[in-house]
Amino acid sequence: MEPPPSERTKVRRLPDRGVYERDVIEAILDEALYCHVAVVVDDAPRVVPTIHARDGDTLYIHGSNASRTLRALKEGSEACVVVTLLDGLVLARSGFNSSMNYRSVVVYGRMREVTDPAEKERAQRVLVDHVIPGRSADVRLPTERELRQTTIMAIGLDEVSAKVRSGPPKDEEDDYALPIWAGVVPVRTVAGDPEPDPKLDLAIPAPPYVRGLPRPGR
Amino acid sequence: MEPPPSERTKVRRLPDRGVYERDVIEAILDEALYCHVAVVVDDAPRVVPTIHARDGDTLYIHGSNASRTLRALKEGSEACVVVTLLDGLVLARSGFNSSMNYRSVVVYGRMREVTDPAEKERAQRVLVDHVIPGRSADVRLPTERELRQTTIMAIGLDEVSAKVRSGPPKDEEDDYALPIWAGVVPVRTVAGDPEPDPKLDLAIPAPPYVRGLPRPGR
Repeated sequence: MEPPPSERTKVRRLPDRGVYERDVIEAILDEALYCHVAVVVDDAPRVVPTIHARDGDTLYIHGSNASRTLRALKEGSEACVVVTLLDGLVLARSGFNSSMNYRSVVVYGRMREVTDPAEKERAQRVLVDHVIPGRSADVRLPTERELRQTTIMAIGLDEVSAKVRSGPPKDEEDDYALPIWAGVVPVRTVAGDPEPDPKLDLAIPAPPYVRGLPRPGR
Repeated sequence: MEPPPSERTKVRRLPDRGVYERDVIEAILDEALYCHVAVVVDDAPRVVPTIHARDGDTLYIHGSNASRTLRALKEGSEACVVVTLLDGLVLARSGFNSSMNYRSVVVYGRMREVTDPAEKERAQRVLVDHVIPGRSADVRLPTERELRQTTIMAIGLDEVSAKVRSGPPKDEEDDYALPIWAGVVPVRTVAGDPEPDPKLDLAIPAPPYVRGLPRPGR
């Protein structure tokens, strides 16, 4: 059962775009390759793009200990994590009703630092596999020094909601008679052919997980 | 000449990724189809994805008068506007050095509401053409009521910087000998075939600007 939307997660503007079903929220989080994380520093917002990964009801991000954003999170700043997937450009007959088709998720709350070694190790694996499913089995494992240099932060999917727009433009009744083209230009993110590192021993073949992208649904 | 980076815009983590040249910054802002805008409400950050457009040294966003984010901006909240373009997945031999190729721009400051009718009209045109260049000449013009319902906010590109990562993975010296595939999977945003509105009179042909997407460089 989904928790009811909070004061912050309730979609007020265009409330019919608000989605609170957990499976829709999880699918958007899983499909997005990266998120934006916002914190407050000196009463001003700060936003950085970063990789995220979901493990059940928990969302992880990671970064260097030296990151000012992670430091603000560790010091207790409220966080806002957003992922946005663009699905199409919506050309209405008026500029006013022109829009975009998109799926976005926002998560609010305070993040906790992951300090338990087992959770930290698992979160790192989940972060690697989020971007390239299957990759974690191949990469060289982190050293003690790398583990010390990396901060992992976690947030529960408690205060969370999605916003979705899909379908054709919605024009004013009178505008449908105008001789103006209207419709949707679909937009998607695609992966190209893998480019081997110039320093790669070319006897090492590209693994299937880099040739199969974008994965289904992405 | 570019202004020197401020306390906030100076890229500290991985400073070699910091870019302050105006032409690079403008190209990223122009290529990105949407941005994320962050404000502070009750000491917590709030982020929304929205369409932006650049006109010279000014960045515009727009929305409904009823938007809580725009209201916070009008009430003087500091803003942080970010655009991010994902260019590739960077598979290093270690998880630690795995990364993404991207170009992002961040703009800080307070936004001003656009109230001058001429600037407001021009900003609306620029916003429509940002997404689909040339579209503004075709759409039905805004009515008085629509103009009243729409808020446009502007921010100067004064406190702004870009962050760019490109190229192959950078591995630890010892890791190059490992039998692990490494390289980059390029990622890009592409447009599909235009989907006419089901209510469209099919005698109206799709204009060239929806058939030419993604436009060069995108």
